[in-house]
Amino acid sequence: MEALPRLAQHGLRMRAHIVPLRASTNAFRSAATRSAPTSPLLFQLQARRALHSSPRSLPLRTAPIAARLPFKTTLRPISTKPLPTHRGPAVRFLYRLFAWTGIFIVVSGTLVVAFFLYDASTYREEVSQEDTIVSEAALSPRRGGPKNLPIAEVHIDDEDSPELREQKDKPKLVILGTGWGSVAMLKELRPGDYHVTVVSPENYFLFTPMLPSATVGTLELRSLVEPIRRIVKKLRGHFLRAKAIDVDFSHKLVEIQSIDHNGNDQNFYLPYDKLIVGVGSTTNAHGVKGLENCNFLKTVEDARMIRAKVLRNLEQACLPTTNDEDRRRLLSFVISGGGPTGVEFAAELYDMLNEDLLNSFPKILRNEVSVHVIQSRGHILNTYDEALSVYAEKKFEHDNVEVLTNARVKEVTPDRIIFSQLDPETKKPVTRELPMGFCLWSTGVAQTELCKTIAKTLGPEFQNNKHALETDSHLRVIGAPLGDVYAIGDCSTVQNNVADHITTFLRGIAWEKGKDPKEIHMTFQDWRGIASSVKKRFPQAAGHLKRLDKLFSQYDKDQSGTLDFGELHELLTQIDSKLTSLPATAQRANQQGLYLGRKFNKIAAAVPGFRANEVDFGDLDEATYKAFQYHHMGSLAYVGNAAIFDFGGLNFSGGLMAVYLWRSIYFAQSVSLRTRFLMALDWSKRALFGRDLMSF
Amino acid sequence: MEALPRLAQHGLRMRAHIVPLRASTNAFRSAATRSAPTSPLLFQLQARRALHSSPRSLPLRTAPIAARLPFKTTLRPISTKPLPTHRGPAVRFLYRLFAWTGIFIVVSGTLVVAFFLYDASTYREEVSQEDTIVSEAALSPRRGGPKNLPIAEVHIDDEDSPELREQKDKPKLVILGTGWGSVAMLKELRPGDYHVTVVSPENYFLFTPMLPSATVGTLELRSLVEPIRRIVKKLRGHFLRAKAIDVDFSHKLVEIQSIDHNGNDQNFYLPYDKLIVGVGSTTNAHGVKGLENCNFLKTVEDARMIRAKVLRNLEQACLPTTNDEDRRRLLSFVISGGGPTGVEFAAELYDMLNEDLLNSFPKILRNEVSVHVIQSRGHILNTYDEALSVYAEKKFEHDNVEVLTNARVKEVTPDRIIFSQLDPETKKPVTRELPMGFCLWSTGVAQTELCKTIAKTLGPEFQNNKHALETDSHLRVIGAPLGDVYAIGDCSTVQNNVADHITTFLRGIAWEKGKDPKEIHMTFQDWRGIASSVKKRFPQAAGHLKRLDKLFSQYDKDQSGTLDFGELHELLTQIDSKLTSLPATAQRANQQGLYLGRKFNKIAAAVPGFRANEVDFGDLDEATYKAFQYHHMGSLAYVGNAAIFDFGGLNFSGGLMAVYLWRSIYFAQSVSLRTRFLMALDWSKRALFGRDLMSF
Repeated sequence: MEALPRLAQHGLRMRAHIVPLRASTNAFRSAATRSAPTSPLLFQLQARRALHSSPRSLPLRTAPIAARLPFKTTLRPISTKPLPTHRGPAVRFLYRLFAWTGIFIVVSGTLVVAFFLYDASTYREEVSQEDTIVSEAALSPRRGGPKNLPIAEVHIDDEDSPELREQKDKPKLVILGTGWGSVAMLKELRPGDYHVTVVSPENYFLFTPMLPSATVGTLELRSLVEPIRRIVKKLRGHFLRAKAIDVDFSHKLVEIQSIDHNGNDQNFYLPYDKLIVGVGSTTNAHGVKGLENCNFLKTVEDARMIRAKVLRNLEQACLPTTNDEDRRRLLSFVISGGGPTGVEFAAELYDMLNEDLLNSFPKILRNEVSVHVIQSRGHILNTYDEALSVYAEKKFEHDNVEVLTNARVKEVTPDRIIFSQLDPETKKPVTRELPMGFCLWSTGVAQTELCKTIAKTLGPEFQNNKHALETDSHLRVIGAPLGDVYAIGDCSTVQNNVADHITTFLRGIAWEKGKDPKEIHMTFQDWRGIASSVKKRFPQAAGHLKRLDKLFSQYDKDQSGTLDFGELHELLTQIDSKLTSLPATAQRANQQGLYLGRKFNKIAAAVPGFRANEVDFGDLDEATYKAFQYHHMGSLAYVGNAAIFDFGGLNFSGGLMAVYLWRSIYFAQSVSLRTRFLMALDWSKRALFGRDLMSF
Repeated sequence: MEALPRLAQHGLRMRAHIVPLRASTNAFRSAATRSAPTSPLLFQLQARRALHSSPRSLPLRTAPIAARLPFKTTLRPISTKPLPTHRGPAVRFLYRLFAWTGIFIVVSGTLVVAFFLYDASTYREEVSQEDTIVSEAALSPRRGGPKNLPIAEVHIDDEDSPELREQKDKPKLVILGTGWGSVAMLKELRPGDYHVTVVSPENYFLFTPMLPSATVGTLELRSLVEPIRRIVKKLRGHFLRAKAIDVDFSHKLVEIQSIDHNGNDQNFYLPYDKLIVGVGSTTNAHGVKGLENCNFLKTVEDARMIRAKVLRNLEQACLPTTNDEDRRRLLSFVISGGGPTGVEFAAELYDMLNEDLLNSFPKILRNEVSVHVIQSRGHILNTYDEALSVYAEKKFEHDNVEVLTNARVKEVTPDRIIFSQLDPETKKPVTRELPMGFCLWSTGVAQTELCKTIAKTLGPEFQNNKHALETDSHLRVIGAPLGDVYAIGDCSTVQNNVADHITTFLRGIAWEKGKDPKEIHMTFQDWRGIASSVKKRFPQAAGHLKRLDKLFSQYDKDQSGTLDFGELHELLTQIDSKLTSLPATAQRANQQGLYLGRKFNKIAAAVPGFRANEVDFGDLDEATYKAFQYHHMGSLAYVGNAAIFDFGGLNFSGGLMAVYLWRSIYFAQSVSLRTRFLMALDWSKRALFGRDLMSF
């Protein structure tokens, strides 16, 4: 009988076994409880015995054994492998620790190996050349058009694949620009419907809302851009890196300029069936002198120049040849313009100076740094809810960022900025000046050369907005042949001439019916009909056409129960005046691009049917899709380790959690998986290593 | 008796319990085997019964039960929690899957939350200004020196912390340049021994060996640079971003030039006790005309310009105004210089063109691309083992990269490169030309302006090497006051004038002893002594002083058993001729920087002792540390999805695995955790998304 001492040794082990059994064998319990067990082992033994059906006086016999075993009553989970003998809690903890460490190492090792295998599969060993057909017409294009330039009717990659070959003869869709509007449209379009060509001097799409972050290294510029060729490729489109300089509407040709390596202009024509103008805007000087002493923030190059200049100033402030006055001036950063771009740049700049400067620069620099925001209105972020503007101003006050409101810049010299500010007491403008080492000019937009040329060609009877190309509510450029030319984004504005449009339309109908329009009187029923067509044609006006009965009785001044032509015109003019022009934001451009993409998909689907049924579709845009309506989704802004959100009714502001939310929104809106991956890494990099203060 | 059916249900569970018990209770077995068990449960039951000491006829009674239980003989580990009843293998698999998924989610969720908490802790809410003391001498430095310029005796951050204040009066160590040599020295120096000031026009250290990778986007530039202020900060040093233009050895002043924001030069003096010149080199034109049409690859800016130009050519090749001849020319990439930089750039360029071009550019481009390497010697990578050169050439042949050996560039025009090549048959040079759209000039190094000025000041009797500053084997610039000025890296060369040095030394001793040196005859014993001092003074010569007896008898031409002065001089001159100058590599600069760092640490430790004991230490460098000896650790090069390694005797080459090894070596040598993190991410980015072909 040698089993007994061994059992005692294995006490711990056996207890471990008993636990689950006990938890799941209630049936045993009923049989076992009769004999009042005193220990878990005892209980199990009894349970087992129950199998043999004859209950005996076990307690008496087993009690001494149970007493000799070192049992405790705590329950512990069972480990997954046979365990060695003689182990205390510390050993067991170590054992588990090693097991988990092992699992972790194996799992992460497997992931690493898998990644390396994947990585290895991405290198191309073999030379990737393929035979390809290029038509003679693409290699040496025929000349023609008003200026006898080469006409790019065929591209060198039109035969690169069967799909490309198939869509060679589809309607030619030419998109100028690679900003928000163009990219939204490119992403929305169905491949294969059009022969798409994108023309832009930049071969990337820039995620503009985050650009201020890239000026100080919170994000890297490459995380904010996506190669346009990748986006175009998905649509089986073509890309030409060049600049459109003119449009010939009658021959349907865009004149495009490229510069060859000798610096000579090389112009050519690109034919189109449909042309989208999405070339954005340039900076508005507002007649201020000395803007060559300012930096701007619209392009990748701008952001890089800002980064270099800020760091150049910091480095210069450390040199022994820089006296105290010069140092203060070099470290005085002025932002002219209190809109989102200016405010976010001020916030990012402050963050960098506050968080990273002291890590490697002399302390005196941090003490002599000053940041100033000059805003022409009464508040910064004046398009936001006032409470949010005030929050932002308070945040800036806490951060020692000076906000100068009701101030207009008059001149910028290399070392100071001169502005006039309303004296809060006398309400009269006082001229002031501020020494500065850096000035960001972030206020206002102006038309690009191309848009000016287009507006001039179309003439003032169609285009008389000095800031943007006017389009109808189908986004067609007014004055150009109907359905040929569209404009989206910052370079365009949607005309809200409700009154003119509707009265002209009604007058036409009246004349057709042989009636004198002046004698027409519209009943409330007629007015309802007119209002519904206004809503359809001018979706932006819908909000102002809610109480039709009230409007009717208000403008029916003679209380005749009818509106005459004059009264209707007055009513509609009143509505016109309430419609503001759309904001020059990424949000609007994006919505316009999506709208055009959807419409063009519908047109492509509808036209074959119209043709087959010999339907005269008249206004194709109107026949296939509704007019463009802008939906304001809200605005947000970063104000320096805090963010503000203006979602119409729902406005809020806050610290770090709001910053994470602000980031998440832009993260989600970012253009590709690649940019998201890079943005996340940049944020991690900042957390781990800080911003790198290197000037290139 | 309801236990039985329940037990059958729990069969699976119970089997699981038996396993470990069975494995560890051999003692039971002896008692149990007597009754020949037929199943594990049966065995266990018997074992338990054995406790009660009276063996009965169990087999008969338990066999039916065992047969009814769904036991299998495979062993499975026990899960850690009580499992629900009635489960098949699929359910169990799912259960485990969910459990592991849960664990994974919880673990990664915890990590993410932890990271966010960490991230949140890195933002600074409060304004970081601190009171600081700045001495008047730093704010308005006194003027003086030969040119009456401001003298920067005190820095504006000399009082920023107690540590800085303490080392204010330590010997002033000025380091010019922030390349491999300077950074190796900065990392080696012990903080607190010197008042260190680093001067450089660039505020970063560039990891040059990987620069070719950054020209095509395999790596990003920011992954290859480290802010120099971070490195200097660890040493409690100071950094001035400016350019050294002259040295006044008698007043111990470096003249430094900075440019203020008006574009005016602002010069000042920086006093030194010890000056390190590590300003690198510029490109050597080798008298070739038209280098303004070439790109170079030495700086961050160079790499960016290359990236932009390569992409500009690719984009231009797509335009309809580009004819076929122009396209071939634009896509003809020429690399002049078959050294490591040229070869690695050619390899990276080929990779990019082969792997990424077809993803978004027209196919015809890939077919018309050509890459050419022009090398003046018979092989590319001529400093490597010939087998490796041949391997690289074969790899390039496979990749259609043309290698033109024995060719010398004569002129570069904007659109072609003109060179003469040895005709393999006639052995006469033939003039050829190659149309090209891009030319990288990567051959040879020349002196910077500062080094030219220093050499001129010291005069031709001390400095007569046209390519670099000559130093002795303690890296002290020859001709400058002993122990004041050192030169390291590409701008320096270690003089190996063994013969002159030793004979002058011996002659001096002879004269002192009143003997005519011509009449001195050295025995073999004397020669052994001389050889050992040569080895100490010129470590590079050690390899040529191995068979002393053989050398002695070889040069003892008159077989007199002694060497006279003439014979000794001839022997040493012969050794001189065998010593080649050190290569202009990162490796050498790094070793020299480390050497100086160690020596300066030793000097700082030794000087107080020497002073206290009033020891006249004579040549302080020689008294404290050995002479510099270069140890060649081997060379490696990337040759396009393959790499070659020349480790002296151990040479090898290979494909992807070698590339991973090549990367690991540089990864390990990289300057900081930050750059390693970024490099790893860049490589992952390439694998996941390819190289982004955006030109900025």
